[in-house]
Amino acid sequence: MTVSYQYEVASSTSGGFTRLLLKWKGSLYKLIYREMIAFLLLFITVSLIYRMALNESQQRYFESLARFFDRYLEMIPLSFVLGFYVTTIANRWWQQYVALPWPDKDEESRLIRRTLLRYTNLMMILVLRSISLAVKRRFPTLEHVVESGIMTKRELESFKSIQTEFNTYWIPSCWFVDLLRECRTTKKLIDPPGMRFVMQEFLDIRSKCSLLWSYDWISFPLVYTQVVTLATYTFYLACIVARQNLLVSEDDRLAVDDYFPIFTILQLLFYMGLLKVAEQMINPFGDDDEDFELNFLIDRHTKVSYLVVDQIHQNSPLIEKDIHFD
Amino acid sequence: MTVSYQYEVASSTSGGFTRLLLKWKGSLYKLIYREMIAFLLLFITVSLIYRMALNESQQRYFESLARFFDRYLEMIPLSFVLGFYVTTIANRWWQQYVALPWPDKDEESRLIRRTLLRYTNLMMILVLRSISLAVKRRFPTLEHVVESGIMTKRELESFKSIQTEFNTYWIPSCWFVDLLRECRTTKKLIDPPGMRFVMQEFLDIRSKCSLLWSYDWISFPLVYTQVVTLATYTFYLACIVARQNLLVSEDDRLAVDDYFPIFTILQLLFYMGLLKVAEQMINPFGDDDEDFELNFLIDRHTKVSYLVVDQIHQNSPLIEKDIHFD
Amino acid sequence: MTVSYQYEVASSTSGGFTRLLLKWKGSLYKLIYREMIAFLLLFITVSLIYRMALNESQQRYFESLARFFDRYLEMIPLSFVLGFYVTTIANRWWQQYVALPWPDKDEESRLIRRTLLRYTNLMMILVLRSISLAVKRRFPTLEHVVESGIMTKRELESFKSIQTEFNTYWIPSCWFVDLLRECRTTKKLIDPPGMRFVMQEFLDIRSKCSLLWSYDWISFPLVYTQVVTLATYTFYLACIVARQNLLVSEDDRLAVDDYFPIFTILQLLFYMGLLKVAEQMINPFGDDDEDFELNFLIDRHTKVSYLVVDQIHQNSPLIEKDIHFD
Amino acid sequence: MTVSYQYEVASSTSGGFTRLLLKWKGSLYKLIYREMIAFLLLFITVSLIYRMALNESQQRYFESLARFFDRYLEMIPLSFVLGFYVTTIANRWWQQYVALPWPDKDEESRLIRRTLLRYTNLMMILVLRSISLAVKRRFPTLEHVVESGIMTKRELESFKSIQTEFNTYWIPSCWFVDLLRECRTTKKLIDPPGMRFVMQEFLDIRSKCSLLWSYDWISFPLVYTQVVTLATYTFYLACIVARQNLLVSEDDRLAVDDYFPIFTILQLLFYMGLLKVAEQMINPFGDDDEDFELNFLIDRHTKVSYLVVDQIHQNSPLIEKDIHFD
Amino acid sequence: MTVSYQYEVASSTSGGFTRLLLKWKGSLYKLIYREMIAFLLLFITVSLIYRMALNESQQRYFESLARFFDRYLEMIPLSFVLGFYVTTIANRWWQQYVALPWPDKDEESRLIRRTLLRYTNLMMILVLRSISLAVKRRFPTLEHVVESGIMTKRELESFKSIQTEFNTYWIPSCWFVDLLRECRTTKKLIDPPGMRFVMQEFLDIRSKCSLLWSYDWISFPLVYTQVVTLATYTFYLACIVARQNLLVSEDDRLAVDDYFPIFTILQLLFYMGLLKVAEQMINPFGDDDEDFELNFLIDRHTKVSYLVVDQIHQNSPLIEKDIHFD
Repeated sequence: MTVSYQYEVASSTSGGFTRLLLKWKGSLYKLIYREMIAFLLLFITVSLIYRMALNESQQRYFESLARFFDRYLEMIPLSFVLGFYVTTIANRWWQQYVALPWPDKDEESRLIRRTLLRYTNLMMILVLRSISLAVKRRFPTLEHVVESGIMTKRELESFKSIQTEFNTYWIPSCWFVDLLRECRTTKKLIDPPGMRFVMQEFLDIRSKCSLLWSYDWISFPLVYTQVVTLATYTFYLACIVARQNLLVSEDDRLAVDDYFPIFTILQLLFYMGLLKVAEQMINPFGDDDEDFELNFLIDRHTKVSYLVVDQIHQNSPLIEKDIHFD
Repeated sequence: MTVSYQYEVASSTSGGFTRLLLKWKGSLYKLIYREMIAFLLLFITVSLIYRMALNESQQRYFESLARFFDRYLEMIPLSFVLGFYVTTIANRWWQQYVALPWPDKDEESRLIRRTLLRYTNLMMILVLRSISLAVKRRFPTLEHVVESGIMTKRELESFKSIQTEFNTYWIPSCWFVDLLRECRTTKKLIDPPGMRFVMQEFLDIRSKCSLLWSYDWISFPLVYTQVVTLATYTFYLACIVARQNLLVSEDDRLAVDDYFPIFTILQLLFYMGLLKVAEQMINPFGDDDEDFELNFLIDRHTKVSYLVVDQIHQNSPLIEKDIHFD
Repeated sequence: MTVSYQYEVASSTSGGFTRLLLKWKGSLYKLIYREMIAFLLLFITVSLIYRMALNESQQRYFESLARFFDRYLEMIPLSFVLGFYVTTIANRWWQQYVALPWPDKDEESRLIRRTLLRYTNLMMILVLRSISLAVKRRFPTLEHVVESGIMTKRELESFKSIQTEFNTYWIPSCWFVDLLRECRTTKKLIDPPGMRFVMQEFLDIRSKCSLLWSYDWISFPLVYTQVVTLATYTFYLACIVARQNLLVSEDDRLAVDDYFPIFTILQLLFYMGLLKVAEQMINPFGDDDEDFELNFLIDRHTKVSYLVVDQIHQNSPLIEKDIHFD
Repeated sequence: MTVSYQYEVASSTSGGFTRLLLKWKGSLYKLIYREMIAFLLLFITVSLIYRMALNESQQRYFESLARFFDRYLEMIPLSFVLGFYVTTIANRWWQQYVALPWPDKDEESRLIRRTLLRYTNLMMILVLRSISLAVKRRFPTLEHVVESGIMTKRELESFKSIQTEFNTYWIPSCWFVDLLRECRTTKKLIDPPGMRFVMQEFLDIRSKCSLLWSYDWISFPLVYTQVVTLATYTFYLACIVARQNLLVSEDDRLAVDDYFPIFTILQLLFYMGLLKVAEQMINPFGDDDEDFELNFLIDRHTKVSYLVVDQIHQNSPLIEKDIHFD
Repeated sequence: MTVSYQYEVASSTSGGFTRLLLKWKGSLYKLIYREMIAFLLLFITVSLIYRMALNESQQRYFESLARFFDRYLEMIPLSFVLGFYVTTIANRWWQQYVALPWPDKDEESRLIRRTLLRYTNLMMILVLRSISLAVKRRFPTLEHVVESGIMTKRELESFKSIQTEFNTYWIPSCWFVDLLRECRTTKKLIDPPGMRFVMQEFLDIRSKCSLLWSYDWISFPLVYTQVVTLATYTFYLACIVARQNLLVSEDDRLAVDDYFPIFTILQLLFYMGLLKVAEQMINPFGDDDEDFELNFLIDRHTKVSYLVVDQIHQNSPLIEKDIHFD
């Protein structure tokens, strides 16, 4: 589900972002509490072994091990790698949102209008089924689409009669063009400029569907994602040893740090949080809290389409003078 | 309110940005003086306790605590995280401004023209009501919109008769299309190209309204915001202990630093200032000094629309030869 | 004035950027020599006091003060803050240039054409008067615009008869539309496609004017600018004390550094230079060397408009076979 | 082949990116295992020589050598240089994908339609042959294109009769325009608006082909690529000496590090991984796992074009009431 | 000349970027070998003086000087400043390429067509003459343009009769419009939609020419370029002293480093290489290896224009069934 919080940060003086820290849904805590608990368990285990189970020479060895791991932490410039990666993914994420089509434009006689809007919605569902797990779960087969009323049985047959190994989400757009051409010939659509707007809108929606499919097909290069993930997780693992509070360094030792490495936890929270931001954004069509609610959108588009076609146009208010008219 | 200062920095030699440092409205100081005062109070309290209330061994313990916190400050790469975050938010912020519709284009016979412009303004108010606290406060109910003359009573009825669970800011656009189609049929609008411009402008305004609504619905991922906020605030808190002037380090100690940590204050000013920049920009439709003045814009659009329709077109100067015409 | 140097760096092997270091107009040196001289005077004064006027214990105190300031210099990540800020401002700067309208497209009968081009230029001057100090100085009142021949007296009356509290730079665009509509009715403009191009160009120019006005109204958030300015200037001030050549540190002391801190000067040159880049770019309509030469542009547009309308079209070469025609 | 993994990271809570670490195709490991093995062999050889073959004074010399190399590693800010470079290349990469034309729009009578679509596909193949090794391998000569049925023999003759030293991928677009003009004259294409859409789509495809060719012609400046490559490889080479576990530094020595420098391997993995990301992205038309599958695209476009023209339009479902129609 | 190497890096596994390191044309080495040789000569001279000519106390003084310079090297964050600068310049560079017009679209009767294409090419040459040294060298006077057949003598007279102090590259566009209007009146151009495409293409080319001219007029602010250049060159100069291998620091001294500071050379190679990247990109219309080959483009556009008009359209293959037609 989409987590909208823009409304709550309307004013930056009265609380502002601080209030956001207490949210759970879609929050940093919800996303990485698992990793944090695992980290703590591992950390405490290692700490206990080091303090209880090892003899003195083993402890000395462990200490050199810890210092060795610590050097590694300084070797990875995690903040930059993550910074550049998240920025690039964030762009891709918003572009994917913008690529979602909004079919509630409208034109002409009722049956044609309904059909046109239906084809638009159908094309959108077909492409979303192939890229989104959530939409696929809602419409596992095309029969489910027929049931929902967005496709008729005859259209399904027509659709299935096309044998090809390629994704065919664009077939309703061909029907659409045929329908439009027929309207033109039979003069049901009188004016050419109106038709041009319909055509233009439709081409726009079609190219958006194709862009959505492209984002799915052409993933962001795996290597980059692996580099970033591996860097973050080795950092996480190295912390388990490297951040142990050593018995030999008396100066800045704090008892609390023996079993609850508070600042290491915070640091991991930030780094893994950033990685989670990227994970959420890289596929915005899944099940994450932040993912676009495609099923909601499908409902909205379907219902609003019918609303526009059936109710609103038969209910348009008459033109009248407004109160400032003199 | 929008804080415009571009005019004052016209020349970079004579004063330039320096003058901007003295502004209060929308300034760094106004935004974070609360946090700074809180910081100073906490800092002085801790300092007094450390110096007065603790015995020597407790002081030694506190000192190791301070050094411990100090190490943390070096662990968070705050400047990068903030740099990447603010840059991304700044883009979103300007895109949101650009998405605000400007309906003062114009066309055709007076009553139709007024109605068209009214519908444009109405659609804008409807969408702004759902995303801006300030506009919502001005028009708490649709009756207030009717009172302001932007909607007639009959239109309100028509509007309310549409039962749906979705946001319906786009309904006036359907009326608009119906009105336009009627004009076409009844030949009140003679020329098709003119109509196409009206239609195109209107589709553009409509898609801008829908983009505004999208920016509100799809917030920037909460996790990123939380990471940045948490990093800044833990930095702020850690400073209270870590930046205490320790009794043991004689060398670079300055008395002034005991109770007024001047440079820490400055550093926090920069980091929290950047966070505030992001807070202001993330929702530009609220009450902050920097937020877009939507109510002013609504007034402007309404009044200018009527001005254009009623006064200017009845007052157009006759065509005449200019003074260089030979 | 605009400083164009692109031509001089045509080749990167023969001198390249090195030659640019010797320029004065619009140069780093011209922009910040004042700050540098001030810095040197302050630095030398402090140095003299430290060496001559202070007794030994005071010198020791000063030394701890200097070390204290020095620590601060390391606390501000100036290069990043400036890097992100300048990059964002540079984008805004170029977008503002691109938003400047270029009205030298042309169409149809001479008087109408002149009037259309005049209205275009007039609209541009009206919006520039409200955002640029330089243009405001050239046309302090609307009577000056009339004098320049871009507005007729009758048009000024018409313009002044519109009473509103809002910026009215867009009024000529209404006249323009009226004029065009009249042409259409009276058949002076025969072909609709031609008219559509005129209309489209004009809408484009109008929306550019409105964008220019928006850039002026919606300044880049003051807080960000203040953070960056404050960071740079406190760095500058802290340098005066922190970079003093201390008597106690014998090792790397150089006599030259006592009164002329060469590398500190260079470092400040870079940081303050970057700040100046941002200052110049944030308002490109002012008096800086790098600012867009709006008055030149106005002259150019006016003269070129008349040239096109009056001379060129009456002088078009006849169509003839080129030399390769066989 | 394109490696699509977007579907697998639909949810960021259940596994998320971690699962991606196990992939082989298109993975970090597949790309740089060669470099890693080479590194280990060299590293172990040097280590063995240092420990076994050198006498003590030679060992001392080697140690100073190692420290000397180590200083170098700190001198190159590899993470930034790579960060900026990869970000810029990633933009170019996606723009190249977006520039690939998708010709499955359609219009009008069957033979004309087929020919038009054939010309579109032909133009695309001609431009891809000149920029992609993979497509060149598939169609080594134009005769192969004729064989595949995308070009007729007569068209090939026509094509070959044009003698010029420039790339002529755009010739089918001239034929296309001629064909369209003929259709217009002979009234096979009745309506002008339909023709305008065909023309617009075609101009769009043509300019995309020309953009593709431009990306190939205007490579990203070689110097930048060389700087980045050289920096990474010298880092790699310097590591072989610098990261040797010296006999003299007892403190943090670990036996495992003598012959298997685990963290150095990881660090190289990240840096060289980022370089490989750039290498893959800089030419997305080659043979890499991440490269766009152009031959697949050509197949798809050809087959889908014929599908649309021949099957779908003769099979369009009749318009009928949907189940919600009341 | 443009250096295209995209084809050679088609596969990232087999050699990849490594092969690029051996290129000379347009390479890092070719661009900065001069600076490197100068550096080495200076470095060796200073080294010899230090070792041979100075007495011991002078040597001690020199050593403190070297340490002093060394501190400076750490003060400049060169990698960031260069990173941000090069990224911004790289964007500008590609935008300039995209702004180059490609006039090989075509329409209508032969003489008119030739003239239209000639005017397009002429306008492009006129604007390129004023921004590119290379094109200016090829066409030093307008008579050279006449000789090349792109302008007729009568057109030159017409062109010269326009007296103005402004750049007049846009005059052919006025002739073009006049020619088009005449065609319309005399019905040589029958269909309005065709004319609209011609007009639209032409307006597009004209605005590209104007954008090119703008990039030349509005250089990237000189201050930024100076800051970056100065920072790089002072770094270069400081290295000559700072990186001397001091006699006193025995530990990590290597004899090879006395006269050939290998890693300093490499570091300078990277930093100066990045500066060269920016130098090449800032004016892509010059003589550098990476600069756009404008004279080649002019040849191509002229020849291809005539090819299209004269040969191809008289040679269009007849429409026929393709081999898959059933």
